[in-house]
Amino acid sequence: MSLLIVGTVAFDGLETPFGVRESILGGSATYIGISAGYFVDKVNLVSVVGGDFPEADIELLKEKNIDTEGLQIIKEGKTFFWKGKYHNDMNSRDTLETQLNVLESFDPLIPENYKDCKYLMLGNLVPSIQLKVLEQLTQRPKLVAMDTMNLWMGATMDDLKKMLKRVDLLTINDEEARQLSEENNLIKAAEKIKTMGPSTLIIKKGEHGALLFGKEQEIFFTPALPLQEVVDPTGAGDTFAGGLMGHLSQTDDISFSNIKRALVYASTMASFCVQKFGPEALVGLSSEVIESRKNELLSLTDLS
Amino acid sequence: MSLLIVGTVAFDGLETPFGVRESILGGSATYIGISAGYFVDKVNLVSVVGGDFPEADIELLKEKNIDTEGLQIIKEGKTFFWKGKYHNDMNSRDTLETQLNVLESFDPLIPENYKDCKYLMLGNLVPSIQLKVLEQLTQRPKLVAMDTMNLWMGATMDDLKKMLKRVDLLTINDEEARQLSEENNLIKAAEKIKTMGPSTLIIKKGEHGALLFGKEQEIFFTPALPLQEVVDPTGAGDTFAGGLMGHLSQTDDISFSNIKRALVYASTMASFCVQKFGPEALVGLSSEVIESRKNELLSLTDLS
Repeated sequence: MSLLIVGTVAFDGLETPFGVRESILGGSATYIGISAGYFVDKVNLVSVVGGDFPEADIELLKEKNIDTEGLQIIKEGKTFFWKGKYHNDMNSRDTLETQLNVLESFDPLIPENYKDCKYLMLGNLVPSIQLKVLEQLTQRPKLVAMDTMNLWMGATMDDLKKMLKRVDLLTINDEEARQLSEENNLIKAAEKIKTMGPSTLIIKKGEHGALLFGKEQEIFFTPALPLQEVVDPTGAGDTFAGGLMGHLSQTDDISFSNIKRALVYASTMASFCVQKFGPEALVGLSSEVIESRKNELLSLTDLS
Repeated sequence: MSLLIVGTVAFDGLETPFGVRESILGGSATYIGISAGYFVDKVNLVSVVGGDFPEADIELLKEKNIDTEGLQIIKEGKTFFWKGKYHNDMNSRDTLETQLNVLESFDPLIPENYKDCKYLMLGNLVPSIQLKVLEQLTQRPKLVAMDTMNLWMGATMDDLKKMLKRVDLLTINDEEARQLSEENNLIKAAEKIKTMGPSTLIIKKGEHGALLFGKEQEIFFTPALPLQEVVDPTGAGDTFAGGLMGHLSQTDDISFSNIKRALVYASTMASFCVQKFGPEALVGLSSEVIESRKNELLSLTDLS
């Protein structure tokens, strides 16, 4: 079932207690795409990079089942760059540098053969660009999902609210859910956010797992797998979204019980992501390794 | 199967965003005892109160299946008093006042008919008092469990280490586990703490659930039930321990798979505790209400 992902493809500069990387492949669409590519044969990706983006990275995306027809290359421009530093507890980070570069004037052009996508995942981006994607589609997807962040809850809040009205499923982290809803309690926050548009909501709590709120007030929870070592949390939320959308489009079933299963795959994929820098731990996986890790995650709450 | 609980019986002064209580029934043994009393017919309690402790509160404990023969009443003394204020997020609190009163010279005298207890739960207390309890027992209990806190990781660390060598099961919260082990990662912290004595360890993460680490490196996790309103978190950790020990002594089975089930009851009981001030929400429960809440908790991670 056709899956379209729109988000950033970037270079990241990373500092964590485990090391430093000056400039490695990153971006929301990269993580979502690589993660989803383990579930479906073809992930359509729309993003933008500069002339400095290496052919090898494009090849890597292709190898991971990502169709790059929608990846614009602005030869005279530079790829979006973000640099961040994680604190010792890995739960908080500081942004050290942001160079928007080609992202500043990004106009998401959806290739003709992507326009009838059945599953759409809008990675974290300026809400006005997310809106532009929806406007180009020839039919309403079966499921529109989006991720967002606190950065868009200020000056671009009106656009964000417009977007929320048009999505079925929102993924957001706990702090952002509190900010968006102005509710400290996550159940109340979820109820309020659902009145803003999305009928299904996933609140990501990082190492504390993720909560799924369904249309009929159902709640489901998946823990995050406890790990001996978390090397770099960058991209974990996007990898999570990739596992979620990958499973949903693979099975073409958006019932609540299947979204629950997708949440488990989402958490499974995120658990790989954080074990190495950037998408490094993600690229060498197999279905067998993913299933085995998923079973490990399920055994964590298995009473039998 | 005989269950002995040693801990504090106290008056608490509480301030939370939901209100203020000047002085209500509290203390680790109170919460553990009331919670465990839903699982066994008789909970033996050893603690100390002053002459100011009302007969009505003793009656309340008795009604909740607690045997108060071991509750020393120092007529000329005053009951231990603690006063705390919770911040808006309910995850942190300040101690505003501590009056040790009769607790200062507490000598835990174990009644003869408690000395062959099969299950022992040492609530949070100065480690030297916890040691005095063990010395009076006529046989080694089948399971010795204890709770502790950061307060004892300074000047009384030597005593705490002596105690740890003599317990089978330790319950501790995440921050305290990090402090005790000097490891930030919880899996590494758990491994290190297990080398200090307890073969089984439960790390309590409050609203983020609890992790159980078994003898054979097994890990189990139970979430905390997401609640619309948390009114007062006081005693939640002790109520958790009460559910745990109540189920274990009721079933007289300390296999890892039964400790897993006990953890679910522990989390279930804690979910009631926080919904009202003090032990108020705990006193009016029934087995049916507890089973129903437990099933709600289990459904949170039920994929079927």
